[in-house]
Amino acid sequence: MSCVFCAIVGGDAPAVRIYEDDDYLAFLDIRPIVRGHTLVVPKKHTVDLTDTPPSTLADLIRIGQRIGLAARDSELKADGCNIAVNDGKAAFQSVFHIHLHVAPRHAGDKLSFAKGLVIRRDPDREATGRILRDALAELDVKE
Amino acid sequence: MSCVFCAIVGGDAPAVRIYEDDDYLAFLDIRPIVRGHTLVVPKKHTVDLTDTPPSTLADLIRIGQRIGLAARDSELKADGCNIAVNDGKAAFQSVFHIHLHVAPRHAGDKLSFAKGLVIRRDPDREATGRILRDALAELDVKE
Ligand SMILES: [Zn+2]
Ligand SMILES: [Zn+2]
Repeated sequence: MSCVFCAIVGGDAPAVRIYEDDDYLAFLDIRPIVRGHTLVVPKKHTVDLTDTPPSTLADLIRIGQRIGLAARDSELKADGCNIAVNDGKAAFQSVFHIHLHVAPRHAGDKLSFAKGLVIRRDPDREATGRILRDALAELDVKE
Repeated sequence: MSCVFCAIVGGDAPAVRIYEDDDYLAFLDIRPIVRGHTLVVPKKHTVDLTDTPPSTLADLIRIGQRIGLAARDSELKADGCNIAVNDGKAAFQSVFHIHLHVAPRHAGDKLSFAKGLVIRRDPDREATGRILRDALAELDVKE
């Protein structure tokens, strides 16, 4: 079985990492719908809502909240964000390792989040990653 | 301040209720994008990711997961679901009492979740509510 998110977790595939702890990893989506579009995944592979423990989902959204708040406080100057889990192919899940999307939003954004067709290129993914990591570190300092 | 979700929680506005406990309420969205589109809200009013405790978000997604699983097992025969939190007006939040969307999905669904423009009418909201409540009760029995 080859899972691209397991490969990222294992360091066998590249990713711009935003956050990591013992059990979770957050990294930039390689097909962002907006700048800073981040995925949060458990390091332990599960597929969807049917096999993912509720406590894992709870952790995913707690981490997603922090990334969303960090995006507000960062150079990205987000005004909000969409948080989403697409559970199953019928719900447009494309990688079958459960993940939570965090998509920073700006007032006036017209893009439809789940449309998944219009993808903006990030002019500088590394910079975006650095901005979000720094903003998360700032959040830690404030608390 | 008048908040329609606080009114629903307080019983001052009608809703087809799906789930309730001391701290949370789930009910059918009055503008469903798909049949069974449910909102989960904390009874205590908060606005968005900036003022909602992480533990509340964790509870919302745990309840959302159960509703999604119930929809799979129910007459709605969902194949999956979208779970989403729209944080802020920039992210298309329309009611400023935080809520988690659960939208059951079927293979072949073409609707874009966050588009929010195409709304399917539910031919029988009461039946949909009953189906989901029954399926949740079934989940409880199985465990
Ligand atoms: Zn995996
Ligand atoms: Zn309210």
